[in-house]
Amino acid sequence: MNQTELWSAIQWNDQGLLPAIAQDAESGQILMMAWMNQEALQATMDSREAVYYSRSRGKLWHKGETSGHVQKVKAMYLDCDGDTLVLQVEQIGGIACHTGRASCFFRKFSGGSWEDAAPVLKSPDEIYR
Amino acid sequence: MNQTELWSAIQWNDQGLLPAIAQDAESGQILMMAWMNQEALQATMDSREAVYYSRSRGKLWHKGETSGHVQKVKAMYLDCDGDTLVLQVEQIGGIACHTGRASCFFRKFSGGSWEDAAPVLKSPDEIYR
Repeated sequence: MNQTELWSAIQWNDQGLLPAIAQDAESGQILMMAWMNQEALQATMDSREAVYYSRSRGKLWHKGETSGHVQKVKAMYLDCDGDTLVLQVEQIGGIACHTGRASCFFRKFSGGSWEDAAPVLKSPDEIYR
Repeated sequence: MNQTELWSAIQWNDQGLLPAIAQDAESGQILMMAWMNQEALQATMDSREAVYYSRSRGKLWHKGETSGHVQKVKAMYLDCDGDTLVLQVEQIGGIACHTGRASCFFRKFSGGSWEDAAPVLKSPDEIYR
């Protein structure tokens, strides 16, 4: 497979983006979902650390650039349709979420409502000061 | 939390959709990513089986309706931003992908290319006949 095939396998959406799911490589826990453009994916491949595209800020986002909670990419999988990526990562600091939790998926559906189901490991004030 | 709060926690995208990641509840393997509209999420909550919204067909898609490979929902998590869902499921038949593989994420990035990294467990001809 050459460079062209590598990229042509990917189906970017109308905005030129691809959803990327980060999963803890050891535990299998799903940590977060974010978006990549081609530049972000190239930067992820080059650095072997997760680099996303921040839709709100309109620029590349090297995950952990402020918090130190970078994601070292151990493996990367594309799905059958080529429109979603899974990153298996080592989550430095054990915290993926900006709320200070291990995973962004901490609101569990329970008894007809969403309940916080995971502890804050470190306060955001402490993470981002 | 009342019905209004249950739904107001969710940030649907411009098309009124939410990405939903299905994960094997036992092994932690990520099986697929698909989309839900409010009707699909309501149907998922009601039936406790994954119901997505097919963007290509423009209608609800009860996963497994043809193949029998339904996903029994064991737990459901919303992320910090309220814009992505994780479903922990029991994958009936052990096959989530229309290609006959356990997971849709079978193309592994390896040596600069995407390589098929998982076996076809059952041929699509057999699944969909």
